[in-house]
Amino acid sequence: MAIGIFDSGLGGLTVLDAVQKRLPDVPFVYLADSAHAPYGVRTADDIFELTCAAVARLFEAGCSLVILACNTASAAALRRMQESWVPPDKRVLGVFVPLIEAMTERQWGDNSPPREVNVKHVALFATPATVASRAFQRELAFRAIGVDVEAQACGGVVDAIEEGDMILAEALVRSHVDALRRKMPTPDAAILGCTHYPLMQQQFQKALGDEVRVFSQANLVAESLADYLVRHPEMAGFGESAFLTTGDPHRVGDRATQFLRRQITFQSA
Amino acid sequence: MAIGIFDSGLGGLTVLDAVQKRLPDVPFVYLADSAHAPYGVRTADDIFELTCAAVARLFEAGCSLVILACNTASAAALRRMQESWVPPDKRVLGVFVPLIEAMTERQWGDNSPPREVNVKHVALFATPATVASRAFQRELAFRAIGVDVEAQACGGVVDAIEEGDMILAEALVRSHVDALRRKMPTPDAAILGCTHYPLMQQQFQKALGDEVRVFSQANLVAESLADYLVRHPEMAGFGESAFLTTGDPHRVGDRATQFLRRQITFQSA
Repeated sequence: MAIGIFDSGLGGLTVLDAVQKRLPDVPFVYLADSAHAPYGVRTADDIFELTCAAVARLFEAGCSLVILACNTASAAALRRMQESWVPPDKRVLGVFVPLIEAMTERQWGDNSPPREVNVKHVALFATPATVASRAFQRELAFRAIGVDVEAQACGGVVDAIEEGDMILAEALVRSHVDALRRKMPTPDAAILGCTHYPLMQQQFQKALGDEVRVFSQANLVAESLADYLVRHPEMAGFGESAFLTTGDPHRVGDRATQFLRRQITFQSA
Repeated sequence: MAIGIFDSGLGGLTVLDAVQKRLPDVPFVYLADSAHAPYGVRTADDIFELTCAAVARLFEAGCSLVILACNTASAAALRRMQESWVPPDKRVLGVFVPLIEAMTERQWGDNSPPREVNVKHVALFATPATVASRAFQRELAFRAIGVDVEAQACGGVVDAIEEGDMILAEALVRSHVDALRRKMPTPDAAILGCTHYPLMQQQFQKALGDEVRVFSQANLVAESLADYLVRHPEMAGFGESAFLTTGDPHRVGDRATQFLRRQITFQSA
């Protein structure tokens, strides 16, 4: 038994990394649907079917709790899965709720003194596909009334990270922050709405300045999961962590090792 | 009768613009397969089927000569179409051959004194999908032996152009040129391997410096077409130009008008 973490590709490894740091004794099974990635270009029905198939595979691997560490799947499939598909003894959680809780009412951080987070002008940095989907904007309008969101589609950042050109990635981050500031000069907070962006969190913070609070999904999911497991310790599980892929395990493992800069071995899902 | 210009989306309008400037008396029919764009994420078989359907529509509209103003279709479908599908009385031409001719043996430009183009170190700027397809690199290796090509995947530039944020687009171009120079410090020539990039040609030239010869597909296709029509004047046609789309003509027309900064009216294909 373990916690399942699902992503269409490797971006969700930043979420895995954050939760493993927060919960070093909890085993995880990571599943990358590499054979069908990227999801951003698929229809909602397609994404629903693929996400259900992947989550079913994680249930089968012994996971009772699965985190969708994928913005596209969280936006396109999670609500429908929770309403019509997830069995009563299982849980599937997405990446939006921890973020919205953190931005609106939840007290932030277990190591810092509790304080209210009070944001009005929010900058959203995400991929062009995520921005075009309007998923964040919809969730925020639904759950965080009165928050003004300006989205910046950060084309090129994921590609630069995946190519390992961090100098280019940082230059692109600076240009996108400049572009955001031309639309919203003084944001209170910034959401890094892409699972790749935790790798550039310092660069976003530096470009935005210290007065802007930067919310990274990976850390927020780790905190939410830690809270959840305090209330539901039976979900935590025991055993070894594992990495599964629907693609070629050698290729995916090589790319994952380069991405997270530690050795990761994938098996066929 | 007119010359057909096909693209999956609106990028090919830069090719249309260049050929209309070069050949103001020739009528064109532009067809955007907006309903199925972008092609970059599709399989080769899919792209072949869609491109044949679109070109058949242009034949039906009276075009005997069709230009694939689409790197993805040219790379994935053109050779197979020419070998097995194009009727003997029709011609389908792509965007690679004019470029390769210009880079290797053809004398450049009708207005400048003839001279040999002699390039060894070539920088290729294209979208991440085009770079990943290796289509240019394959065509160049096949036709231009001894030319050393370094590709830079320019993530974000197309998105910035489509959003109309030219300040951001220019900043991204500079960052991508810097990234290319870290891999190839002194290119002789640069290929703008994306139909959107003619809109940023000055910015590429400025970032690269005057000593680098910048090849833009739109201008090369216009020159090649002008040469071709001198040899085959019966292909030029007469009549009105028209713009067709498989998508919503109003939406596509609005975007095209914004893209080219002149009024363009689309009809249903």
